Amino acid sequence: MKLNIENEEISLKIPATIANIVCGFDILGMAVNEPFDDIKIKISEKPGIQIKHTDPYGLPEDPKKNVAGVALQAMMNEMDEPPGFSISIHKNILPGSGLGSSGASALGTVAAANILLGKPFSHEQLIRFAMEGERAASGTAHADNVAPCLYGGITLISSEPALQINTLPYPELFVVILHPQIEVKTSDSRKIIKKEIQLKTAVRQWGYIAGLVAGFCKKDIELIRRSLNDVVFEPARSLLIPKFKELKSAAIGAEALGGGISGSGPAVFMLCDQMSVAENVEEKMNEIYTKSGIDFKTYLTTIKSTPLL
Amino acid sequence: MKLNIENEEISLKIPATIANIVCGFDILGMAVNEPFDDIKIKISEKPGIQIKHTDPYGLPEDPKKNVAGVALQAMMNEMDEPPGFSISIHKNILPGSGLGSSGASALGTVAAANILLGKPFSHEQLIRFAMEGERAASGTAHADNVAPCLYGGITLISSEPALQINTLPYPELFVVILHPQIEVKTSDSRKIIKKEIQLKTAVRQWGYIAGLVAGFCKKDIELIRRSLNDVVFEPARSLLIPKFKELKSAAIGAEALGGGISGSGPAVFMLCDQMSVAENVEEKMNEIYTKSGIDFKTYLTTIKSTPLL
Repeated sequence: MKLNIENEEISLKIPATIANIVCGFDILGMAVNEPFDDIKIKISEKPGIQIKHTDPYGLPEDPKKNVAGVALQAMMNEMDEPPGFSISIHKNILPGSGLGSSGASALGTVAAANILLGKPFSHEQLIRFAMEGERAASGTAHADNVAPCLYGGITLISSEPALQINTLPYPELFVVILHPQIEVKTSDSRKIIKKEIQLKTAVRQWGYIAGLVAGFCKKDIELIRRSLNDVVFEPARSLLIPKFKELKSAAIGAEALGGGISGSGPAVFMLCDQMSVAENVEEKMNEIYTKSGIDFKTYLTTIKSTPLL
Repeated sequence: MKLNIENEEISLKIPATIANIVCGFDILGMAVNEPFDDIKIKISEKPGIQIKHTDPYGLPEDPKKNVAGVALQAMMNEMDEPPGFSISIHKNILPGSGLGSSGASALGTVAAANILLGKPFSHEQLIRFAMEGERAASGTAHADNVAPCLYGGITLISSEPALQINTLPYPELFVVILHPQIEVKTSDSRKIIKKEIQLKTAVRQWGYIAGLVAGFCKKDIELIRRSLNDVVFEPARSLLIPKFKELKSAAIGAEALGGGISGSGPAVFMLCDQMSVAENVEEKMNEIYTKSGIDFKTYLTTIKSTPLL
């Protein structure tokens, strides 16, 4: 592949993403406007990849150990004569938050590099490169964060027979996120899940998924509300998140449509159909965590409707 | 409830229905324009229910043993002074075909009676009454045939926390049905299904369901095509249907979008996006069954877009 180096330096804001969206394990995800990472990338005279983190989270700067480096290397492997890259990453999406931190690093880096090079790679290829970063982070090359991170909005991922991303229509929604400052590793959160489930439980779950997808597509707020349930993962995974039940119950009491664990947690998110409701939900969730003594951060945001490039 | 007897006799054409639509076990269904039953109902001076079948299928005319009678009795139990009803049913939807035969008898009868009485009952109530007929027929009070039979089009059934029916948008589709004239009882077809499934299989299935629902809503033919797969039920249930694999493979070879078992079978249906494709698919399926020596009937029809009342 011949490269057309169009820009010397690119800065991108890379959105946090909420994988699963309660019932859509491994198939649904959404991008939000906050929090976001800042990624700067430029061509370097030095060959290979140099990564510098300007955030305080102590992530490895060795490109072989950093998901951004792994993803970019996968991209460079497709070039005949790859240039050197120098990357500066400032993470606001905390590692291990459940908000797609590794996905943002991986996808954001390859997306920024692709712009820098004049967009030689397709969206599908960028997803594949970024998934290599995800594989390095969690052992699974999943697309449920990198897909919404790239496409924006709400994405539906189908993997059979080949990976395909579809975006879904959706109504205006407000998103409240509470991120407890504890770490839950995706790999641990996956371990807690049983490998077999009751058929009747699976049927309930796919009723919720079908309802949620239809609710988004039809912009039917009541259908979204009744479909935001997870009978397969939440009962086990929520045990890893302090005060989960109280948070959810308070949010729904304050008229959130529903919500649950973001990705594999520990961040918890709630969807609301009005700003005033979302403000109230944020306040209630805030109160519970303030009392708990656990460090936390909340965001009141919206779905990021635009693609990254 | 006071009754307002508006009409002396009502005739209705009651559509066949395709439950599950490949991957949407227990949650999806569609109504088709062919075949259909003819139901006539009138108020009788004689109290109670009299049922007469003008078809040759030997169904019981004792209202306690006929799903139409069971459903109508459930409706009459909600009236203070129910009148007598005389019902004449001519079935073209064969019992045990997988095309919603019992659902058509049950729903058609209560829908016709409701019109006759000036529509005192809501759609939700009619569904409940008809589900009592389904319970009598198969042991399970399921709504996946009676819902599309009443609402028309493609319906999504959610059962939690309470039964709710939503209709989905969909693109123009042509439906080819092949009904082998062998009987597969719903109860037998349910027995063949395992009670536990692998989580990874469930995740694949809900990917298909989410894709199919999104495909219908977005009128995205290619998404429908790739989502018409069933990795949970079809592998077992298709064993009860002679030549199933050949039928499906020939239909897809002739550019059907996909398809599978209608309800619990033995009818098999295929969806096509063009009339010319559907004609070709019908011919290919016809050839296979003509060679097999098994009696069969085919239909080339469309989705019935209008509600029953």
